[in-house]
Amino acid sequence: MNQKKVILTGDRPTGPLHLGHFVGSLANRVKMQDEYNQFVMIADMQALTDHASKPELIQKSILEVMLDYLSVGIDPKKTTILLQSLIPQIPELTMYYLNLVTWNRLKHNPTVKQEIKQKNFQDSVPAGFMIYPVSQAADITAFKANFVPVGDDQLPMIEQTNEIVRKFNRIYNKEVLVEAEAIIPEIARLPGIDGGAKMSKTLNNAIYLSDDMDKIKKKVMSMYTDPTHLRVEDPGKVEGNPVFIYLDAFDPDKENLQKMKDHYAKGGLGDVICKKHLLEVLEAFLTPIREKRKQYEKDPKHVLDLLMKGTSEAEKVASTTLKQVKDVMHLY
Amino acid sequence: MNQKKVILTGDRPTGPLHLGHFVGSLANRVKMQDEYNQFVMIADMQALTDHASKPELIQKSILEVMLDYLSVGIDPKKTTILLQSLIPQIPELTMYYLNLVTWNRLKHNPTVKQEIKQKNFQDSVPAGFMIYPVSQAADITAFKANFVPVGDDQLPMIEQTNEIVRKFNRIYNKEVLVEAEAIIPEIARLPGIDGGAKMSKTLNNAIYLSDDMDKIKKKVMSMYTDPTHLRVEDPGKVEGNPVFIYLDAFDPDKENLQKMKDHYAKGGLGDVICKKHLLEVLEAFLTPIREKRKQYEKDPKHVLDLLMKGTSEAEKVASTTLKQVKDVMHLY
Repeated sequence: MNQKKVILTGDRPTGPLHLGHFVGSLANRVKMQDEYNQFVMIADMQALTDHASKPELIQKSILEVMLDYLSVGIDPKKTTILLQSLIPQIPELTMYYLNLVTWNRLKHNPTVKQEIKQKNFQDSVPAGFMIYPVSQAADITAFKANFVPVGDDQLPMIEQTNEIVRKFNRIYNKEVLVEAEAIIPEIARLPGIDGGAKMSKTLNNAIYLSDDMDKIKKKVMSMYTDPTHLRVEDPGKVEGNPVFIYLDAFDPDKENLQKMKDHYAKGGLGDVICKKHLLEVLEAFLTPIREKRKQYEKDPKHVLDLLMKGTSEAEKVASTTLKQVKDVMHLY
Repeated sequence: MNQKKVILTGDRPTGPLHLGHFVGSLANRVKMQDEYNQFVMIADMQALTDHASKPELIQKSILEVMLDYLSVGIDPKKTTILLQSLIPQIPELTMYYLNLVTWNRLKHNPTVKQEIKQKNFQDSVPAGFMIYPVSQAADITAFKANFVPVGDDQLPMIEQTNEIVRKFNRIYNKEVLVEAEAIIPEIARLPGIDGGAKMSKTLNNAIYLSDDMDKIKKKVMSMYTDPTHLRVEDPGKVEGNPVFIYLDAFDPDKENLQKMKDHYAKGGLGDVICKKHLLEVLEAFLTPIREKRKQYEKDPKHVLDLLMKGTSEAEKVASTTLKQVKDVMHLY
């Protein structure tokens, strides 16, 4: 008997995952998979909404992301990992939900509006991109997710989902769909190595889980720190300093870290020493991940088989939901 | 070897079909089914775009429309009749196509703009309704239709489909999808019995194929004619007179009809006599249809089985198309 609550998370396969993903979501998923009935979705259909002309990138990234998942410890025995484009119930649900949302409502979704600015679509916003909140409602409700971990900028997406859930249940007069609750992780974001607010592939400021030590060394040694900390003996700023934010996230020796921070703040501790320490910390963190990854990389077919197995389990769940949805809609 | 060209037509199941449907499309389909590989779609998903809260009406109308089809002579041995909501490939294709169309383009579709006015949606246009041109592109391309019979007001829909076809084939670098050509039927429209430009359920001015003779008598005898033809001896207007337009469409004796018209135009022929003649003509036209319908009505399960059989054949075709689409998109 599985009385566990359902949680749905996922990633768009548009490149390998980075330390920001680990801190913001992957670490939580590894924890959550024991407590929840967890679905992790590789959202290739959603990736196409703004990458329609780069299908090869998406195809390649599916395996990359899957390797990232497995190597950080997402366990296919505990977590159902699925490929979105192989769940035909999701587009079907999307079509039904689109009739319950007004065009005006979509236009004013704050998350979508912000992303349109960021992505610089101008007058050429793909229609698929504009409706992706509805498609996301289909993702969430297909698996009757109780919880969805999201960044705080994504809260309007959960609200949109719940509006659809309530409207559907009201119009069709049965509690078929389930409202979802947002879980906002404690550390939602890691800054980029350039000091930018968010580590991101697009901004080219990310350290990837699959980076080798040479790459990581280059990235760490070039990291943005405190720009006013010019001489070793100057007092340095710890707060907002990416090196210390990374150490907070990855250094298990909190006592030593506190000493370093005090020393840095007082003056007399150079950036290079801090960066070298971070490098060691990341090396220690990434080595077991890298080794696990190497094992899986030897047999990519097996990795895809794991994805297909999870997808097939997920499809059964989505199929049950769609059947319930179509029943109350009096569809054949 | 089936080298016949493919033609796709269909109806939204939101009520029984009327004489306007017969003249505008059903009569052509009966002819076309010998020359073409014809698919006729009962578009229940599309009906939901503006009838989301009336699923029972749609469910009931599916059987009605099916009975209308069979009774006018659409032959399931020659024509593939299918139920849209049972072809999951259509929503999948829709999702992929939505990424190839801009939000702006959808907003400016002339057919959709006009229909929004007619339907008086005001600020509450359902998103599903706004994107239905893309869903229609999925209908058409799923079966690789070469021809689509449409009213002239629907030409922008075919243009939208072909834009998607060209963009898809260009981006994914293979001629997978097929452009469709509009066929505009000679008589696209029958006026309403009230003299309105279009016979329509919404306008309550229609004579249904399933109306009994009593209903038809009432409707014909109350028909709008020439409002200036007050006395029998007055000259009457033939042109634009619904009674004569109906006779043009249904009276096989063209010679006698011409005599009647001349007499009416000259004066001395009363509306009642013309209407009684029309009633005879419609009786002769509808009697065999009504008898055929009675046979099918005895076994609604068989009628739905015919629909399911066609749907299953159609699903195979759509599935082949979707496979080709996903292949060139490098999807699993």
